[in-house]
Amino acid sequence: MNTSISSVGPVSAATLSFAEPLPLASGQSIADYSLCYETYGQLNADRSNAVLICHALNASHHVAGYRADYPKDIGWWDNMVGPGKPVDTNRFFVIGVNNLGSCFGSTGPASINSATGRPYGSSFPMVTVEDWVQAQARLADALNIQRFAAVMGGSLGGMQALQWAIAYPDRVAHAVVIASTPRLSAQNIAFNEVARRAIVTDPEFHGGDYYAHQTVPKRGLSVARMVGHITYLSDDDMAQKFGRALRGSDDYRYGFDVEFEIESYLRYQGEKFSTYFDANTYLLITRALDYFDPARRTGGDLAAALAQVTSKFCLVSFTTDWRFPPERTREIVSALMKNKAELAYAEIDAPHGHDAFLMTDPKYHGFVREYFDRIAKTLSPQVAA
Amino acid sequence: MNTSISSVGPVSAATLSFAEPLPLASGQSIADYSLCYETYGQLNADRSNAVLICHALNASHHVAGYRADYPKDIGWWDNMVGPGKPVDTNRFFVIGVNNLGSCFGSTGPASINSATGRPYGSSFPMVTVEDWVQAQARLADALNIQRFAAVMGGSLGGMQALQWAIAYPDRVAHAVVIASTPRLSAQNIAFNEVARRAIVTDPEFHGGDYYAHQTVPKRGLSVARMVGHITYLSDDDMAQKFGRALRGSDDYRYGFDVEFEIESYLRYQGEKFSTYFDANTYLLITRALDYFDPARRTGGDLAAALAQVTSKFCLVSFTTDWRFPPERTREIVSALMKNKAELAYAEIDAPHGHDAFLMTDPKYHGFVREYFDRIAKTLSPQVAA
Repeated sequence: MNTSISSVGPVSAATLSFAEPLPLASGQSIADYSLCYETYGQLNADRSNAVLICHALNASHHVAGYRADYPKDIGWWDNMVGPGKPVDTNRFFVIGVNNLGSCFGSTGPASINSATGRPYGSSFPMVTVEDWVQAQARLADALNIQRFAAVMGGSLGGMQALQWAIAYPDRVAHAVVIASTPRLSAQNIAFNEVARRAIVTDPEFHGGDYYAHQTVPKRGLSVARMVGHITYLSDDDMAQKFGRALRGSDDYRYGFDVEFEIESYLRYQGEKFSTYFDANTYLLITRALDYFDPARRTGGDLAAALAQVTSKFCLVSFTTDWRFPPERTREIVSALMKNKAELAYAEIDAPHGHDAFLMTDPKYHGFVREYFDRIAKTLSPQVAA
Repeated sequence: MNTSISSVGPVSAATLSFAEPLPLASGQSIADYSLCYETYGQLNADRSNAVLICHALNASHHVAGYRADYPKDIGWWDNMVGPGKPVDTNRFFVIGVNNLGSCFGSTGPASINSATGRPYGSSFPMVTVEDWVQAQARLADALNIQRFAAVMGGSLGGMQALQWAIAYPDRVAHAVVIASTPRLSAQNIAFNEVARRAIVTDPEFHGGDYYAHQTVPKRGLSVARMVGHITYLSDDDMAQKFGRALRGSDDYRYGFDVEFEIESYLRYQGEKFSTYFDANTYLLITRALDYFDPARRTGGDLAAALAQVTSKFCLVSFTTDWRFPPERTREIVSALMKNKAELAYAEIDAPHGHDAFLMTDPKYHGFVREYFDRIAKTLSPQVAA
């Protein structure tokens, strides 16, 4: 067994198509859709070492390694997943999947609707965390994986891990929920709504059917990304990284061009994002975040909503995360404890705000590593035939 | 003396015009400008009971009472200023002044530039907190007020009170600085920049000269206001007031129309604001906020920046204010203490975030009332001839 810490190496995405309509929470359904995914490591003999990684807003199935056709494109959680890494691909068979509605390969608003021959655009159905998890379960069926050793995600990805434990208790041995929340707060929804207003009021949005107009609502999407980005960073981290440093000058220039470094950084982030991310996908994903609220069905009682859960839990939050602060994860912890569920919870003192879940932090990674080490000890080491 | 707590009653604004050019921090200057102001109470015999109230982003000279020509329009700090109120107009002569660059009566970007016969628009010069204070000092000269009993403001208004104490130590007996900061943080600037990007990327902005196009960048201004508004409220207060309550439905409708109460509220706030506020003024005022940083001239040493200050200080911050949290006011307190300045500081445990400075809170108002009571005791009770 190779235990050196390194990349999973070059990877290529696979695509699975599903003809059977997927019924959605909204009452609509979607047929003839595809899901893009990547896998790392090898499935063991009894197919018990599979780990599903769920992505957050701005990510995809490309979790680890680098793209064979574009080596600069390194997976978004490459520091977490790989040989010798916390989620060790020498021991686990890891699957990264791109969600329905995304713009990175799975069927989404920019995809051609086979029924019309045109991009879905505004006709793409609303998708929820529940829908994504159901679609992921069908992917697992197709890959002949009955039960995951773990389903894992950060932020919106953590919501999916939680939803897996609710919807498919028999199919998830461990749910790993990082920097997440059992529901958005009013403030969270408010920031999402600002982002959406920026997009839909951009004249280039054309009611969501901008593809036909050979344009994209770049300005709106850029503003949306800027406001989102602020919520990913901590106030202190921003102060440390940017403070009030001026850009390219020692003195005020008294104008509206970039004056402060933080402005330059945010504009760049917004611009870059608006060149590769689909505006309709941004709308869909922020709405999926808004809607997620498993305790809604139980009158706000999260413990009751998690009553059927049998998975064990690993949860992590970060002290400076003001988007989904530790209090939110502690709500999940309390509900699980009320249900006498087995869990491990770490509140990590990290400066990086919400984005901390993507960073390499020895305490954080050490905690996840130890958790996965314990899972690995319960698994058959034999590789699947 | 009438000590009943009531309104100052009907008020009308006055306007003073200044022909002499005002030199600005940017190196530019502005000539032939007017300042709009209101006064309440009566100046005493030795002209020692004048209090200047400085406004924040979305406010004006209309501080107290109601407009004689439009009684529904109540002053923005009417709970603070009036007969028997914390700033008691039975004892103080209070002046509210609208700043240069505003859109509520003083000369601003929407005003006609007498040199061209057209609205200033993008040619309106950048104005800073220092410039405003200088313009206010000229207004005080014109009103023959040599020294203010107090200069007072909340948020951006508090910056002006602080700047008065720095620029005109002999003319300010007391500086009353509420919910303010000695400088914006990177996060503060970031939110301002998002707001500005929303405005300037609106196609109706026309580089700031939208007046000539008979249009206004309503969409951008509305988004700008929405993002600003989020920063004025505390997370907890939003949770209390809105939570995840749905608007006009018991169930999710799975769409992008208003679904949650918080969305409805924010959209309404944005829309309303965009009908009466000038976009260029929004740009100018957010930039003035960004630029204010008195310690910049002293290498970041605020105590050194305040070395010449002789005014006494009253400072208030609010525990749930995450825009300008108590830590920021404590920086001013520390600097003043280092200089052995006389000061009173209250950190008020209030749920309303930054907006708390506008709310009626017994602890907060009690503290300000007591401070002004002490000032009043030092004043001649005789009314000016």
